[in-house]
Amino acid sequence: MTTRWTRKDLLGLRELSADEINFILDTADAFKQVGTREIKKVPSLRGKTLVNFFVEPSTRTRTSFELAALRLSADVINISATTSSLTKGETLKDTARNLEALHADIFVLRHGSAGAPQFLANRLKASVINAGDGAHEHPTQALLDLYTIREKRRQIAGLHVAIVGDILFSRVARSNIFGLLKLGARVTLVGPSTLVPREFEKLGVEISHKIDEVLPKADVVNLLRIQHERQRREYFPGIGEYIRFFGLTKERAKLLKADCLIMHPGPINRGVEIDSEVADGLHSVILNQVTNGLAVRMAVLYLCGGISA
Amino acid sequence: MTTRWTRKDLLGLRELSADEINFILDTADAFKQVGTREIKKVPSLRGKTLVNFFVEPSTRTRTSFELAALRLSADVINISATTSSLTKGETLKDTARNLEALHADIFVLRHGSAGAPQFLANRLKASVINAGDGAHEHPTQALLDLYTIREKRRQIAGLHVAIVGDILFSRVARSNIFGLLKLGARVTLVGPSTLVPREFEKLGVEISHKIDEVLPKADVVNLLRIQHERQRREYFPGIGEYIRFFGLTKERAKLLKADCLIMHPGPINRGVEIDSEVADGLHSVILNQVTNGLAVRMAVLYLCGGISA
Amino acid sequence: MTTRWTRKDLLGLRELSADEINFILDTADAFKQVGTREIKKVPSLRGKTLVNFFVEPSTRTRTSFELAALRLSADVINISATTSSLTKGETLKDTARNLEALHADIFVLRHGSAGAPQFLANRLKASVINAGDGAHEHPTQALLDLYTIREKRRQIAGLHVAIVGDILFSRVARSNIFGLLKLGARVTLVGPSTLVPREFEKLGVEISHKIDEVLPKADVVNLLRIQHERQRREYFPGIGEYIRFFGLTKERAKLLKADCLIMHPGPINRGVEIDSEVADGLHSVILNQVTNGLAVRMAVLYLCGGISA
Repeated sequence: MTTRWTRKDLLGLRELSADEINFILDTADAFKQVGTREIKKVPSLRGKTLVNFFVEPSTRTRTSFELAALRLSADVINISATTSSLTKGETLKDTARNLEALHADIFVLRHGSAGAPQFLANRLKASVINAGDGAHEHPTQALLDLYTIREKRRQIAGLHVAIVGDILFSRVARSNIFGLLKLGARVTLVGPSTLVPREFEKLGVEISHKIDEVLPKADVVNLLRIQHERQRREYFPGIGEYIRFFGLTKERAKLLKADCLIMHPGPINRGVEIDSEVADGLHSVILNQVTNGLAVRMAVLYLCGGISA
Repeated sequence: MTTRWTRKDLLGLRELSADEINFILDTADAFKQVGTREIKKVPSLRGKTLVNFFVEPSTRTRTSFELAALRLSADVINISATTSSLTKGETLKDTARNLEALHADIFVLRHGSAGAPQFLANRLKASVINAGDGAHEHPTQALLDLYTIREKRRQIAGLHVAIVGDILFSRVARSNIFGLLKLGARVTLVGPSTLVPREFEKLGVEISHKIDEVLPKADVVNLLRIQHERQRREYFPGIGEYIRFFGLTKERAKLLKADCLIMHPGPINRGVEIDSEVADGLHSVILNQVTNGLAVRMAVLYLCGGISA
Repeated sequence: MTTRWTRKDLLGLRELSADEINFILDTADAFKQVGTREIKKVPSLRGKTLVNFFVEPSTRTRTSFELAALRLSADVINISATTSSLTKGETLKDTARNLEALHADIFVLRHGSAGAPQFLANRLKASVINAGDGAHEHPTQALLDLYTIREKRRQIAGLHVAIVGDILFSRVARSNIFGLLKLGARVTLVGPSTLVPREFEKLGVEISHKIDEVLPKADVVNLLRIQHERQRREYFPGIGEYIRFFGLTKERAKLLKADCLIMHPGPINRGVEIDSEVADGLHSVILNQVTNGLAVRMAVLYLCGGISA
């Protein structure tokens, strides 16, 4: 592979080539080794400053980026919406330009509005990493999902991946769809028709409203979190209904191939998307995803941070 | 002494031997020296990650652990209840397993439920340090109290220690009782009968409801914070009443032995548990406790962190 | 210049000599170079601990101090009012003495009450840096303003500086007035008579209620943020009125000298104090101020931290 990384930002997987995605995953391989050493730090970003700018709260993604940056020896500043000047009526652009004027090198942005990271990336010399923007993309989540699949199954091309749940509002689903298709997987979206509308077929995926038909054929089942907060009432019949038709119960888990991988971006709702025992069972790679997220984020920060330097 | 440290967790003093407690205090002696140097950092935990996971808020304990970890060159991640995924309905266990999957090496946990640290310690390879769990234990607070007494009086065996106030709901009192008795002190609990019930005698302590009889005989008086929030109305007659019967007023301070030590875990309510001048007077070692807390927590993190490695 | 720095605290510009102010600005020059290096850290405060203690929230000032401290290799602990023991009824003095007992070396304090930093400075061996106290002073903001003017215009003596807006309630205005006059500038305060009362003339400044008469003569125009929250209704006619009489509109910007500098402490209200295009235009040095704030705060922490050591 002769790809070299040329982007200062990571905004989404839609715009990346398969080569670029593979290059990130290969770089993550190297950083995963660092996590097994006695001293888990490398000096790659020493003297650089990363700003974790989370306008929507998230413990796990914020923590993962913070740890990744600390492992790379960067300094980390955490800013959350409630404590930021945004509450004084300042615009996102002004806040970002001010932080850039403080010589921040990398912004990790989580924001409720689709496109907010792109908006910043166009205006700042610093790197902008999208940590989830509205219902648009969550590229590092999809990259860690791809990394985990590749690690367990050696290659992604030809695998059949089912993504189950609230597709319509899911940035995780969107980023996964783009990444999986680019790397040659077959993707089936599964869920009630209100949450998995036919329009998605245009992206190149299949649609199913019957999980029991899909489970026996899937190499990977990626269960999305049922996020009540972001779903309007009319899309969603109720938790009991959801479990009955789409929950990965112990009964349904019997339909899975022996080597099928169960994934979930977390935090899991035990007993809703997935039965508690299944979540902790042999198919599950949910905690591997978390560990791999650190390596993937180290790779992304290292690559993008190297360009903005 | 031939004791070596073999525990990955510090959950309470009840389960520790006198040798183990003394070993922590001796280790703290070495770390206290570090605090007097020009450069107060040692590389003992370099590359390790400590997660300060405070489900109940606490500035001083969190800050003390954070500073202790920074002095040991660890990386520190702070997570508080309000910002954590717990608010999304995730269980404590799942949050912890996720943080462990991020290669966190040490968890410092404050939690409203007695036993939460034990629950985590059983399930994680990482070290778990109890920073206060419900009304159960607060071992590092008791260790710093023991350290301060030993530092000022050379040895603890044979000393008479009075613990005054809300014993019934106090994890500080419980950890102190276990530690003091193991090291050979005589302990008298003082307070209204609703807050200092007779059952405590089974632990091997004496009970008194008359502070004026105890003060002249005590070598150490440890005043607990009156914590309105955790006390139900029926246990507690009112602040004025409490001061009148149990407050360490200027008048009562005259009853103290010349070398009696006054301790308080803080934050103090000036004019309630203790008169403001007495708090700042010659008997008081309250600020020594704070300084020693740093050394004791460095010792605990160093010892437990060394086992989990 | 033979001045050496002898203060452990920076509480305000009123008490500083011109030599002391210039010494800080010269020290900041050296630190500004550090910000242009590949590795932006120097070991000056390695092993020291800075506590950012913000009883009033502020993203930008807190972040600037945090970054400045990290660049000097200090450890930083952030404490905000809502998470601090202050909510448990502890006094400011007790909180500070406890943090000092933890060997914190430098306190950066933002507080709603004028004089709070002085109160602490008198009681602590540690350094206290005022990051804004009520309507009293905000010395590092004024120092970065002075630094920016000096950088752009080589010297401050003889320049005519207009400060526009809410002078009555502004700690930024007060610190700027003291600093500018000591360094030989001419100062005109501009705003409605309710916010710019005649008493200010006693400080040695001029007063104007007509911005259009001042703009053509000014070398620097420093626009203060209109802070609704701190202004009582009777002082203030309404935003529309304010813009009409005192806003730096595109039309008014035509009155400026070609080399006039436009400053603002941020966060700016685009379209209120200043037109959006003017804020981003050639006169504006607003983002330079932010960058210079880092260098100035590094200088202040370095100088005061060196004394408290």
